[in-house]
Amino acid sequence: MTVQLDALTWVELDRLTRDGPPVVILPAGSLEQHGPHLPLGTDRFMPARLAALVAERTGALVAPALPYGYKSQPKSGGGNHFPGCASLDAATYIHMVRDILCDLARHGLTKIVLFDGHMENQWFLTEAADLALRALAAEGVVGTRIVKFGYWTFITPETEAALFPDGLLSWELEHAAVMETSCMLHLCPDLVRAEEIPDGPPAAFPPYDVYPVDTGPIPPTGVLSSAAGASAEKGRIVVEQVVPDIAAALVTAFQTDPQG
Amino acid sequence: MTVQLDALTWVELDRLTRDGPPVVILPAGSLEQHGPHLPLGTDRFMPARLAALVAERTGALVAPALPYGYKSQPKSGGGNHFPGCASLDAATYIHMVRDILCDLARHGLTKIVLFDGHMENQWFLTEAADLALRALAAEGVVGTRIVKFGYWTFITPETEAALFPDGLLSWELEHAAVMETSCMLHLCPDLVRAEEIPDGPPAAFPPYDVYPVDTGPIPPTGVLSSAAGASAEKGRIVVEQVVPDIAAALVTAFQTDPQG
Amino acid sequence: MTVQLDALTWVELDRLTRDGPPVVILPAGSLEQHGPHLPLGTDRFMPARLAALVAERTGALVAPALPYGYKSQPKSGGGNHFPGCASLDAATYIHMVRDILCDLARHGLTKIVLFDGHMENQWFLTEAADLALRALAAEGVVGTRIVKFGYWTFITPETEAALFPDGLLSWELEHAAVMETSCMLHLCPDLVRAEEIPDGPPAAFPPYDVYPVDTGPIPPTGVLSSAAGASAEKGRIVVEQVVPDIAAALVTAFQTDPQG
Amino acid sequence: MTVQLDALTWVELDRLTRDGPPVVILPAGSLEQHGPHLPLGTDRFMPARLAALVAERTGALVAPALPYGYKSQPKSGGGNHFPGCASLDAATYIHMVRDILCDLARHGLTKIVLFDGHMENQWFLTEAADLALRALAAEGVVGTRIVKFGYWTFITPETEAALFPDGLLSWELEHAAVMETSCMLHLCPDLVRAEEIPDGPPAAFPPYDVYPVDTGPIPPTGVLSSAAGASAEKGRIVVEQVVPDIAAALVTAFQTDPQG
Amino acid sequence: MTVQLDALTWVELDRLTRDGPPVVILPAGSLEQHGPHLPLGTDRFMPARLAALVAERTGALVAPALPYGYKSQPKSGGGNHFPGCASLDAATYIHMVRDILCDLARHGLTKIVLFDGHMENQWFLTEAADLALRALAAEGVVGTRIVKFGYWTFITPETEAALFPDGLLSWELEHAAVMETSCMLHLCPDLVRAEEIPDGPPAAFPPYDVYPVDTGPIPPTGVLSSAAGASAEKGRIVVEQVVPDIAAALVTAFQTDPQG
Amino acid sequence: MTVQLDALTWVELDRLTRDGPPVVILPAGSLEQHGPHLPLGTDRFMPARLAALVAERTGALVAPALPYGYKSQPKSGGGNHFPGCASLDAATYIHMVRDILCDLARHGLTKIVLFDGHMENQWFLTEAADLALRALAAEGVVGTRIVKFGYWTFITPETEAALFPDGLLSWELEHAAVMETSCMLHLCPDLVRAEEIPDGPPAAFPPYDVYPVDTGPIPPTGVLSSAAGASAEKGRIVVEQVVPDIAAALVTAFQTDPQG
Repeated sequence: MTVQLDALTWVELDRLTRDGPPVVILPAGSLEQHGPHLPLGTDRFMPARLAALVAERTGALVAPALPYGYKSQPKSGGGNHFPGCASLDAATYIHMVRDILCDLARHGLTKIVLFDGHMENQWFLTEAADLALRALAAEGVVGTRIVKFGYWTFITPETEAALFPDGLLSWELEHAAVMETSCMLHLCPDLVRAEEIPDGPPAAFPPYDVYPVDTGPIPPTGVLSSAAGASAEKGRIVVEQVVPDIAAALVTAFQTDPQG
Repeated sequence: MTVQLDALTWVELDRLTRDGPPVVILPAGSLEQHGPHLPLGTDRFMPARLAALVAERTGALVAPALPYGYKSQPKSGGGNHFPGCASLDAATYIHMVRDILCDLARHGLTKIVLFDGHMENQWFLTEAADLALRALAAEGVVGTRIVKFGYWTFITPETEAALFPDGLLSWELEHAAVMETSCMLHLCPDLVRAEEIPDGPPAAFPPYDVYPVDTGPIPPTGVLSSAAGASAEKGRIVVEQVVPDIAAALVTAFQTDPQG
Repeated sequence: MTVQLDALTWVELDRLTRDGPPVVILPAGSLEQHGPHLPLGTDRFMPARLAALVAERTGALVAPALPYGYKSQPKSGGGNHFPGCASLDAATYIHMVRDILCDLARHGLTKIVLFDGHMENQWFLTEAADLALRALAAEGVVGTRIVKFGYWTFITPETEAALFPDGLLSWELEHAAVMETSCMLHLCPDLVRAEEIPDGPPAAFPPYDVYPVDTGPIPPTGVLSSAAGASAEKGRIVVEQVVPDIAAALVTAFQTDPQG
Repeated sequence: MTVQLDALTWVELDRLTRDGPPVVILPAGSLEQHGPHLPLGTDRFMPARLAALVAERTGALVAPALPYGYKSQPKSGGGNHFPGCASLDAATYIHMVRDILCDLARHGLTKIVLFDGHMENQWFLTEAADLALRALAAEGVVGTRIVKFGYWTFITPETEAALFPDGLLSWELEHAAVMETSCMLHLCPDLVRAEEIPDGPPAAFPPYDVYPVDTGPIPPTGVLSSAAGASAEKGRIVVEQVVPDIAAALVTAFQTDPQG
Repeated sequence: MTVQLDALTWVELDRLTRDGPPVVILPAGSLEQHGPHLPLGTDRFMPARLAALVAERTGALVAPALPYGYKSQPKSGGGNHFPGCASLDAATYIHMVRDILCDLARHGLTKIVLFDGHMENQWFLTEAADLALRALAAEGVVGTRIVKFGYWTFITPETEAALFPDGLLSWELEHAAVMETSCMLHLCPDLVRAEEIPDGPPAAFPPYDVYPVDTGPIPPTGVLSSAAGASAEKGRIVVEQVVPDIAAALVTAFQTDPQG
Repeated sequence: MTVQLDALTWVELDRLTRDGPPVVILPAGSLEQHGPHLPLGTDRFMPARLAALVAERTGALVAPALPYGYKSQPKSGGGNHFPGCASLDAATYIHMVRDILCDLARHGLTKIVLFDGHMENQWFLTEAADLALRALAAEGVVGTRIVKFGYWTFITPETEAALFPDGLLSWELEHAAVMETSCMLHLCPDLVRAEEIPDGPPAAFPPYDVYPVDTGPIPPTGVLSSAAGASAEKGRIVVEQVVPDIAAALVTAFQTDPQG
């Protein structure tokens, strides 16, 4: 049977949950420039596909992925001024995720994973989880547990070494670079413009941020460091490492007794 | 080239918009019970696929569909208490759509279609459009035009007669019934559990609403009137009529000079 | 004794509620153009007077009517751009009604009717009811039941036939037309400019909405279909049918056990 | 012709405003206990009637009065816990008034009076005016001027002496006491339960407030100081003094050039 | 040991609260012009220092003072247009104080004093207290009591007579005048520009407010009545009277059983 | 003259800004546990003192520091459940900072530094800056530039090596550890409980977050890695490096032409 929640009927879902709630994974993406070679939806395609792979191993369900995220930032995404970005304000984003968390839990789906594919979402996902738990407690809906991560936090030192034989600069500068490009080459090869993969030195930012954005230090491609080292094989290595590790982590995370 | 906005790179989009903004269609769905035979994502699958067909005819782009909508109501959707519903509060929904409208327009995509697949979204889409235009005016972003409809409003009397040889009861009671089931049989046959298509008398509601919801008059299947008359052929008739009509309407709607 | 809640003293109200809460009816109006012949306050005058008639039959109380509503829409009210419209944003309207519902219930008035006179209010009243019940549950205020309707939903086929011997076009197009004009001629004859009652063909709108509003299809009078067939006698027929029917419905609605 | 804005048609209003906007007065009331002798709507009835008298002298229009206000406070209204109070949260109240101010001004009605009858509304009216002017400026609606007062601030020392031959305790303690009771005896005699007018010592509050409300110092009647000295004659003196003074002040206030 | 909450470690605080929560005083200030002689932070310095004196007598703790307040008003603060003012919108202010109240109470610090030094904050503090108690009740955090005052409400008639041998005009006009200047001369002499203390007639305002602000009646110094009579000795009298009186009041206020 | 904005009079500030706005630094702190040895206000004391040192070198002014921040997180602050934490919700924090930014800029102070001392504030400061610039643009206030950083981002590799001879684990785990303790020993020695400086292994967190917080991996002291290597001398090294570097960066950041 499908792992996609929205492909189920309510009757099938109802049957599935009779022996306790399945884990529901909510992929959190964005519509954001990813250089001349990756599609605008990269940050949704990645967690959506990884989540499906995790779900197939674990019996989890994948809720429809969130296609719009928080505003791209220069140092981690190139900046929201690039064509094709369409983002939400922070309060909107927080309330959107809070409402979904609450309504899933009100319907008994109290084991939820926030599976982030867009670095800029992370603090707002945290706030959404906090507000949702507070609201649910007030409504008397108890026992909800929310697990949150960006899939990149599961990359092990070994996989990192395979990705970056010369060393990782920083995850922030990996925007549309080796890791994302490799994974997309492995997971969605048709969506990668292989001939457009850019090379070039990494972006050099000052140790502060300026608003309105100073576009000076942002590479014109929107790619924050070279993607030239990307390959489908590297993507395969990442995917085959993080998927089982995330699957195992979810078993642990939902097994232990919740605190607080 | 693809009509899916999120499958483009920013460079491709930038090139596309050089001679003026393409029309961008935003399908608005929901995660809502649709009886024992249709998937929870029906209200997104339908407008997303119809929008793609319209886009292919017109050169429009389809933005990522909104997978979560306003709360299902008993008289038009069976009610938000059914398993699998996960909905947004009104203010959240309004702000989410407002933010997307604003950010599209800030990036020059000032011709936007709100393509609704979920009846409960409609008034909140209206408010989102109003707030977006007000905010954009304040920011000095001018010339935005937003067109909104539920695809069912394009069904002609002839198509209606083909769908309902014995007459239409009401569009509200058509939830998960003949029209939606027929269209899904035509557009997404793999997602329809044909053997589960329910028959039965239409729901009979009093002329008022009660909160908390009175589940008494709601059919246990969540289907508000019989879907037994559905067929892929009827779906084909609907799709082949509304798609060109919507395509033609968009030409008109974005051609005339905006008022106000 | 008066049925107007605001004409009571707190001591009288306190005495009245000793044996359980009376039903409290909250009329929801607007300040909106109603053609050259009906006053801007029509959508408040109508439900306020009908509510008083219902209250007199049932022992209910009428809370002060809400004089400002959601923004007039072209297809159901002519549009908010007409002189004299003054409306609330959706979030404001929702929170206003939620706060009143909550505070009535906190004071023990847990049987509340949202008696709508302005079509554009309806979905926002629904959201207000939902938010109020959620907030009250969190506060531990239990047992609240809210009933919502537009008085026009109570018009029977017989009354409809008396109003429209040639058939009803649609309730949306009835804005400031035969039904409202007839009822105002019956209930508030001094407020009708009888010599200004307009005739003319019904408005013809496309199957979509445009923002900013396209004023092209809106009749310059603001009246969406001919009011020429209006009469005080027709108004009497409507009022004498809907008032007892609403009264009876309220008995039923508050008698049955609440669900959910 | 009527001074009530909601009794006009849009055509009449349009004609009226052709030579510049008339002053529009928005009475701001509440639903709040006013002792055993005054109705719950006192704080709306008073400014609504005074505003009509002012309007008749000045050519101003009276917008529909706001029937719900900010929460009654122990020291100025007895407290929101009394039966019959139904109040709005501050943010709701502010946004409600802001929206009305903005929409009046967007329709060209840029001379607006906030005519307060409920002491607890005052700071929130101030915030509403500030937010409205900021929003209007952003939208490019210029030239709006808002005048705000509680009618009691116009009472002269002479009138005060007539009301309180033994001296005024404080305006806060005048809740439902000599001034309000006298004015209601003059303006709305049918709504006063004359035989229930309470006597008794003034409330004695500590120099601080406690939340949750300490009901100890609040007189059980909800009247904060003796109303025994009230009379219709005193009410006449107040009304006949403040109405022309307010009328004169409005001429001045809207004549001078706006600052800032 | 220090009375400043932020100078404690969490371990010390934990130890302190083992036998029940200490009273926590939250001083509420502003950044607002105070004439040519008093610093912009006067409304924070005053309650922060008085609160420390009260805390030393009572074992209370002083939470970090709020440095930004609600917008200065012409009649009580000269107006927010003066250089150096930086203020919060009402909803922001309310939510800021609500959040702090809630989080203190969630951590067991359920005896809280809102110690106001800025007249314009007062109604918003009231709303914050109301919203906090409502939210805490929903979360199941019980027993919180909040006491609120402006320190000036504790000034006795005797002290008032010492401050104003010729009589007090009004507390509102005392902005940056005799009382505040005297107290600052006593408490923070280094922050007073003694040679700049202004003299001059009190401001004369009409009995209404105008928005945008009419700067005509506002003295150019921003001081609303003469400060020439100020002295450190008068400041000493105020401080030595109000500090013990506030200390005593807090004992009473937190001793009695809460109502409601 | 003082660099503290709130110690100036409005007249002095007015004089100071006559030749263009000075840079205004807004330190952003929190009330958060910092182990058994550092005070709850550490995250405010640090940026407030560093900001003053920067201001003394550059002619900038220091606005009153924000004493309450976003909720402490387990992996960077130990978690908001520790005694003494009192934090704001994200929307509150964002609006608070937005309002201050806007009001400073409205008063002509258009060069603003967000000087963060609490890691959890950072994304919300970003959103506040974005919302402020959008609002200011709508109001017609142009030319505002906002610079944002956490002071720790200025620490050079050389200083890092001096702090951590054995290598830095991660800045997140430095909560209340070597860097903060050293700086406090140098800047505020009286506030450090030197005898309580904890030693112990660093916290080991899984690569995901759990809500409600899983307190298992959080060290009971609240210190995320050993502070045993801290010294006043190391603090001196940090301060003497970052202060001139920040001063220099501000000159650069406000010199270049703003983009966007």
